[in-house]
Amino acid sequence: MQVRDAEQARLCHARQILDRVGDKWSIAVIHSLGKQTLRFTELKRDIDGISQRMLTATLRTLERDGLVRRTVHPVVPPRVDYVLTELGLTLLGTVCTLMTWAVTHADDIDEARAAYDARPVP
Amino acid sequence: MQVRDAEQARLCHARQILDRVGDKWSIAVIHSLGKQTLRFTELKRDIDGISQRMLTATLRTLERDGLVRRTVHPVVPPRVDYVLTELGLTLLGTVCTLMTWAVTHADDIDEARAAYDARPVP
Repeated sequence: MQVRDAEQARLCHARQILDRVGDKWSIAVIHSLGKQTLRFTELKRDIDGISQRMLTATLRTLERDGLVRRTVHPVVPPRVDYVLTELGLTLLGTVCTLMTWAVTHADDIDEARAAYDARPVP
Repeated sequence: MQVRDAEQARLCHARQILDRVGDKWSIAVIHSLGKQTLRFTELKRDIDGISQRMLTATLRTLERDGLVRRTVHPVVPPRVDYVLTELGLTLLGTVCTLMTWAVTHADDIDEARAAYDARPVP
């Protein structure tokens, strides 16, 4: 029973992490930074639909989680860029697989939803 | 520019799907059903911390998305069980990789957060 408790605690902790890392904007940022180092405005342009405020918050959380590194270059005007850390890079492959899965199966999911919604009410 | 718009629209749709499919309870349910067909009470026991209400809602959404199939067996008392569909099975490998990633790197993330929070305020 103790083994099960420890396993449950580990999975529960993992779920909390996934809940954070798995939100759509985090995935979008990791996906974008997988291609190259980017500045804030470049990221914003790359991720259609994200607001300035949401991008700021997402980057801060990813930086706090150790997945993204923010570098301020001492130039005039100051330049700030973002890059995946080594830890962030370990997640990149899975994030790309997830994005590809979602793009590939988007139509299947739309069809499933339409079929579900068209079912006669029991 | 039109190519970029179409690509953006595809990614945006994919992000919406991931936002749904990527929430922690969906991932937990897909992960549990990856092992075997389960009844509601078995799922609830397997996923530590999920409420009855949240499990019901998560299963309904996954069923609507075409990832989980709910089968009512005409026996007395009625038996209802849940299984991953073919579409759900295509997601299982990535979900397991994500869970393994989160379990493996939970300590790294905790350490990164502690270091971030301990930084001197600029």
